[in-house]
Amino acid sequence: MSTITTISGGSVSSSAANDGVGLAERYRSIRTETLNLVAPLTAEDCAVQAMAEASPAKWHLAHSTWFFETFVLAAHDPKYAPFDETYLYLFNSYYNSVGRQYSRPHRGLLTRPSLDEVLDYRRAIDDRVLAFIEGASNDIAKRAASTILIGLNHEQQHQELILTDIKALFWANPLRPAYQVDDSAASAIGSTGSVRWVELDDGLREIGFSGEGFCYDNETPRHRVWLDRFALSDRPVTNGEFIQFIEDGGYARSDLWLSDGWIAVGREGWHSPLYWEKTDGGWENFTLAGMRPVDLTEPVCHVSYFESDAYARWAGARLPTESEWESAADGATEQGALLEGHRFHPAALVDTDRAAISLRRMIGDVWEWTSSAYSAYPGYRTPEGAIGEYNAKFMCNQFVLRGGSCATSGSHVRGTYRNYFSAAARWQFSGLRLARNA
Amino acid sequence: MSTITTISGGSVSSSAANDGVGLAERYRSIRTETLNLVAPLTAEDCAVQAMAEASPAKWHLAHSTWFFETFVLAAHDPKYAPFDETYLYLFNSYYNSVGRQYSRPHRGLLTRPSLDEVLDYRRAIDDRVLAFIEGASNDIAKRAASTILIGLNHEQQHQELILTDIKALFWANPLRPAYQVDDSAASAIGSTGSVRWVELDDGLREIGFSGEGFCYDNETPRHRVWLDRFALSDRPVTNGEFIQFIEDGGYARSDLWLSDGWIAVGREGWHSPLYWEKTDGGWENFTLAGMRPVDLTEPVCHVSYFESDAYARWAGARLPTESEWESAADGATEQGALLEGHRFHPAALVDTDRAAISLRRMIGDVWEWTSSAYSAYPGYRTPEGAIGEYNAKFMCNQFVLRGGSCATSGSHVRGTYRNYFSAAARWQFSGLRLARNA
Amino acid sequence: MSTITTISGGSVSSSAANDGVGLAERYRSIRTETLNLVAPLTAEDCAVQAMAEASPAKWHLAHSTWFFETFVLAAHDPKYAPFDETYLYLFNSYYNSVGRQYSRPHRGLLTRPSLDEVLDYRRAIDDRVLAFIEGASNDIAKRAASTILIGLNHEQQHQELILTDIKALFWANPLRPAYQVDDSAASAIGSTGSVRWVELDDGLREIGFSGEGFCYDNETPRHRVWLDRFALSDRPVTNGEFIQFIEDGGYARSDLWLSDGWIAVGREGWHSPLYWEKTDGGWENFTLAGMRPVDLTEPVCHVSYFESDAYARWAGARLPTESEWESAADGATEQGALLEGHRFHPAALVDTDRAAISLRRMIGDVWEWTSSAYSAYPGYRTPEGAIGEYNAKFMCNQFVLRGGSCATSGSHVRGTYRNYFSAAARWQFSGLRLARNA
Amino acid sequence: MSTITTISGGSVSSSAANDGVGLAERYRSIRTETLNLVAPLTAEDCAVQAMAEASPAKWHLAHSTWFFETFVLAAHDPKYAPFDETYLYLFNSYYNSVGRQYSRPHRGLLTRPSLDEVLDYRRAIDDRVLAFIEGASNDIAKRAASTILIGLNHEQQHQELILTDIKALFWANPLRPAYQVDDSAASAIGSTGSVRWVELDDGLREIGFSGEGFCYDNETPRHRVWLDRFALSDRPVTNGEFIQFIEDGGYARSDLWLSDGWIAVGREGWHSPLYWEKTDGGWENFTLAGMRPVDLTEPVCHVSYFESDAYARWAGARLPTESEWESAADGATEQGALLEGHRFHPAALVDTDRAAISLRRMIGDVWEWTSSAYSAYPGYRTPEGAIGEYNAKFMCNQFVLRGGSCATSGSHVRGTYRNYFSAAARWQFSGLRLARNA
Repeated sequence: MSTITTISGGSVSSSAANDGVGLAERYRSIRTETLNLVAPLTAEDCAVQAMAEASPAKWHLAHSTWFFETFVLAAHDPKYAPFDETYLYLFNSYYNSVGRQYSRPHRGLLTRPSLDEVLDYRRAIDDRVLAFIEGASNDIAKRAASTILIGLNHEQQHQELILTDIKALFWANPLRPAYQVDDSAASAIGSTGSVRWVELDDGLREIGFSGEGFCYDNETPRHRVWLDRFALSDRPVTNGEFIQFIEDGGYARSDLWLSDGWIAVGREGWHSPLYWEKTDGGWENFTLAGMRPVDLTEPVCHVSYFESDAYARWAGARLPTESEWESAADGATEQGALLEGHRFHPAALVDTDRAAISLRRMIGDVWEWTSSAYSAYPGYRTPEGAIGEYNAKFMCNQFVLRGGSCATSGSHVRGTYRNYFSAAARWQFSGLRLARNA
Repeated sequence: MSTITTISGGSVSSSAANDGVGLAERYRSIRTETLNLVAPLTAEDCAVQAMAEASPAKWHLAHSTWFFETFVLAAHDPKYAPFDETYLYLFNSYYNSVGRQYSRPHRGLLTRPSLDEVLDYRRAIDDRVLAFIEGASNDIAKRAASTILIGLNHEQQHQELILTDIKALFWANPLRPAYQVDDSAASAIGSTGSVRWVELDDGLREIGFSGEGFCYDNETPRHRVWLDRFALSDRPVTNGEFIQFIEDGGYARSDLWLSDGWIAVGREGWHSPLYWEKTDGGWENFTLAGMRPVDLTEPVCHVSYFESDAYARWAGARLPTESEWESAADGATEQGALLEGHRFHPAALVDTDRAAISLRRMIGDVWEWTSSAYSAYPGYRTPEGAIGEYNAKFMCNQFVLRGGSCATSGSHVRGTYRNYFSAAARWQFSGLRLARNA
Repeated sequence: MSTITTISGGSVSSSAANDGVGLAERYRSIRTETLNLVAPLTAEDCAVQAMAEASPAKWHLAHSTWFFETFVLAAHDPKYAPFDETYLYLFNSYYNSVGRQYSRPHRGLLTRPSLDEVLDYRRAIDDRVLAFIEGASNDIAKRAASTILIGLNHEQQHQELILTDIKALFWANPLRPAYQVDDSAASAIGSTGSVRWVELDDGLREIGFSGEGFCYDNETPRHRVWLDRFALSDRPVTNGEFIQFIEDGGYARSDLWLSDGWIAVGREGWHSPLYWEKTDGGWENFTLAGMRPVDLTEPVCHVSYFESDAYARWAGARLPTESEWESAADGATEQGALLEGHRFHPAALVDTDRAAISLRRMIGDVWEWTSSAYSAYPGYRTPEGAIGEYNAKFMCNQFVLRGGSCATSGSHVRGTYRNYFSAAARWQFSGLRLARNA
Repeated sequence: MSTITTISGGSVSSSAANDGVGLAERYRSIRTETLNLVAPLTAEDCAVQAMAEASPAKWHLAHSTWFFETFVLAAHDPKYAPFDETYLYLFNSYYNSVGRQYSRPHRGLLTRPSLDEVLDYRRAIDDRVLAFIEGASNDIAKRAASTILIGLNHEQQHQELILTDIKALFWANPLRPAYQVDDSAASAIGSTGSVRWVELDDGLREIGFSGEGFCYDNETPRHRVWLDRFALSDRPVTNGEFIQFIEDGGYARSDLWLSDGWIAVGREGWHSPLYWEKTDGGWENFTLAGMRPVDLTEPVCHVSYFESDAYARWAGARLPTESEWESAADGATEQGALLEGHRFHPAALVDTDRAAISLRRMIGDVWEWTSSAYSAYPGYRTPEGAIGEYNAKFMCNQFVLRGGSCATSGSHVRGTYRNYFSAAARWQFSGLRLARNA
């Protein structure tokens, strides 16, 4: 693997880079959380992918390990020898610069290595990485630290994908298996009040990451944008509101949809968010705790960009740009459900205090579609080497989502974080918040 | 499941129908053999399907059980209650008359029920079927016996499919896992002599099943056909011969191929039989015991109808019709490898006695493509009810193969047996034998 | 074009081969008839193909001319020089042995050469062929004559395709243009009596062409087949009868269909024969004279093999084999509509004399699907050279149709004639006749 | 057609709206230019479409006429009666709000109405529109004027499409027909100097249309954007430069491409711009005057967004945003080839005066890809009624191109004009200009 290239992207505060002890602890903690997430799954569950866009849980376990092997050990550890040459090929996702990749839609065919073998692989690489962190010279450690941090953030992204991909798999099974039991109170007692609008003044704002801590290259550089005066809804759109859209014929009115969205409606047969089913007793939706009645007060989830855009048009509003979203998010405090809560479902949005208006749940619950196509910030520079493939090569035909979801770790997401998916994707925990011109 | 229809097809000798003890024993033995075949597989191996045409081993285990539940217990046992309502849907293959079916290309998504649950299902149905066999009134037993026999033959067909489908799955895996260890002698020492032709006179022959024992409906009725004088090769085409075809540009000469075959060559990129790889050391092929050098003396295997037809044209010969094949098979004795040998690979064809000419290996080693499109025999009547879907509805765009393979049970195959696959199929143990006009 | 190979297939009586005068006359007459057929069409109509399986009329005009240029002039005329090198590529249909071919689904993109230029091409080649026929030495003429006869029969096949392809094109146009005016009496006054069965004894029959005159290689050799006793309907199935099948839910009952047929019904949305439309006033069908009410007494037309097979099953009957059909056709006299009548639609089947039972309309009106897959006759030898590609390479996944249609020339069809199409094809003038075991 | 909705979009200066005489003259002139463009084509040429994304010239002629019939006459003329009811369906492109549309990929099947009938249709509608313009009351005329202006701009868009679509059609034809003769000097004598960079200061700029005259809704509202300091190449990338990219392995280096672009390279087999062919004598390209050697000094043309983006990365630069482009274009004067020149090919870029640096050819020659995804401007409002479908519903998965091409009318394009195509489109006259951070 002579082609392995040193990664040198990201912006990491020097404190983290120097602090081997803190890094090792964080490594252990995040890697363990991944194992917690697959604990409810059988080896069979972990082997299969629901569709070409998803991956088997076992593959996620192996690929996130491959990332550390390739970009930390192979790149920085002079004693490095491959754990298994084949794994370098099987578990490379899309890094052309470090070799060929096993066909993505066929990842679900890899019944070998077994789950046990992949867990052995994880343990072995964990041991080596931890030994490397502890034993590396100050110089090497400094250089490797930023890559390790990327690897841990990468791991957290795959934690979320393990959840979204297993949800898609269980949905394809008529048995509708539950990933876990949900002991939380059956359904919300309160109700969600009508939307209230938070206005923001026009002006020249700064957007993008700055300061201490980790961020991805695509959040940089911090740069100026002019924003006209606008207003943002104080909370995401709820299931109850989305049902009004459905009942008003939202899925049958071409005038509400983008041209490609209208084609998707017909081709895919959409008539509700993903995972919804109309029963005699009303709408139900599939959660990681199984089927249950749709809670009207929860943020609507598993809608595509097309559906979000159509809903906004129907509501006489629009989606926010990512600059508007980020600019407004600064200072918002109330968070929705996050991965740490291990409920993996958006939380009910019940009004408690109608007196004080604030932007609620900018972080957590559901990724919020923005109207911004995913592209490079002004002054953006693609990192050198393989890590340049991490984000930059996907800047085409995707839309930015912001804020994280109930499957995102709170230690992973932040106001400047840019997630991105194609306009028809629905299997992520994606919802929306309205904006309008002021 | 009120739509379940009594099956009343097949031709079964009365002795078998009356003999509950013999039937129970046979039931136990064949059902156990299926379990033996999956013993080397992990739960993960059993969950996945390599392609839409194949099925997961777990599905084969469940479907063959569903067959007994649906057509024996539900149809004949007054005490019947479903083991699990969902299974009736999940494990119905293609019987429209007994309800809807879970989408075939998605069988590999069913990580639940687990392999253990499916094995429980098998045990439970086995208990019930055996109890039914022992406890049924003479009258009911007589009526059910023919269905049980169909179910056992059906089970044996799926035993072969378990092997062919797992071979396809392991081939898709770059690790090239071995299903089993093969301790047999490395490679044949002897060599195969040139083809010798066995001539058969013209005349009016009788074709199709008659007499005692089980047969499928598509082998009936026995009927007359006129055959012109012809000759049949004394043995199947070998790997060594097929390599000559390859080296003579067989895959590059359009004049050797049927029009659809030539299109398949281009579309699929064929340049050798399935499972072959050209290495620096020569041709290797993938077996259920892993990769190994191609043995020149073995019958060539995993070729499509198109390749068989092209080879025959190249060799200045043709494929036999199924009438010619069946007519000639009568009296041939030397058998090739069969499932019982558990080697699951064709046996080397070494000449021992060049003096006596006879038709060798008509049964076993490889299914032999015939030039006959699969269709109804004159006077054929589709059985009433669901069993009418077993064979009759596939009489279109398939070719007949004869003789069984190294993955076919010797107690399952016979001279009149008609297997059928589409002209491009290669993942069965399929080979060919030449014919020519005399 | 050094690869051009002399054609030496077909069976032609020596009288035809020697008789240059008769041949020239026949050449002029058949080539002129082709021009008559395109006379109602505009240059635009002639340029376009309705679907990949069809060709533009202009392409038919050019390709049938290319056939004479390539296989007669280039092969036999020492003075030959290409009319236009590009045409040799553009208008080669599928003869791999005489060079590459322009992509079939893109034939409709060839707006150049223009229709006028193609007509010039026809005239130029006609002049040369006629000069060749007149001027050739006895020896050369004898050798070329059989190819010219094949070319003329080939021309007649394309006459029929011009009609079926233009019908498909006009059907795709919401304006539903009429190819011609039909002045014939509006609708039949009489009615068709119920089916009567003509029984045929069992016995050893001879099938295939013999005697004087032209035939295709696939009609040879004449050979023996054993036929069990059977009965054939005295006439094709009518529109009136087919409507009963529709109204009885024929298109909604999976038990009536072959597995692939049932898939086709769902995929294509079939609910009636091609070119039918249900209006407030009942069923109408599109003819080359435009839309008109379905005539209940006409043979049903534009049904696939799948629909024919399903109808037969519904009717408690089956389709005949091609041997049965051919054996019965011998001696039948009443013909249906043929190309010469220039009405291009099946003729009404009104009972005139119920006393005498005979096989009516074996020739003409509609091609009749048989249950026989298209394959080589016993003893068949593929002709040497390019003409070997004419028929032999299509012997896979097609069914034989017999008897010719209202778009077939009476001088082209005969009892031994084997037409073939895939089981889902509907745009030919194809219908069916029932058979049953006696 | 009761659903026809009044169009009330666009921004038109009141002078144009009031000036019936000027409008009539402009109408005549633009409509006549369209006829000039199809003059070299035969009826066959006009009937066919090269691919689903293109349309037949005849369809363009009819659709642009349908636009006036539907949005001017039907909406504003009290005496309106349809010319032909069917045309309202056949020639509606994508306006869901005014009824169903004939399937786009099948437009090439409409051999009827004939070209002559479509030309009659044009004449009839022209007469009616001109009569309407002259005879309408001041009040009605004022309301209709903006729609007529949209219709004329729409007509000019289709003039360009007639040229790009016929070029694609002729390219599909191995005869490589020439649309016209090009008498211009064979090849440029001069050479293009190296790129020079024009720097622009940072600051708050105003982007979007303002002032008198026509613009599309998507150019509004004029709004502020902040631009960081940047530099723009003084001219488009030339063929000579692009050949260096090719020869440096540009099409074989995955690191230069967006992920979707790299997939497109493989899927489509790209190895040069569209219409290029490598011959023994070097690169040739297909023009509307036939094949000719690639002129190194011309702007490269017929490259996709993916190729433009890859080239820019290879050159160590990037594509400009549309704001950068528009901001810089203000004041640039030298134009490239435009439709009026009737050469329909970019003009050679020879350096005349190296002393003065300026932005050359911002308008004309080739549409320049920008890195901006096509989306709504801040404050954009979708027009009411059918015209809302003109631009807004396509704001997804497209990139903005700026500046017009050699097939764009100079009276149609302007600095604020936003064209948009998907990232893989190559059949437009599309090229690129480099940008970089300053």
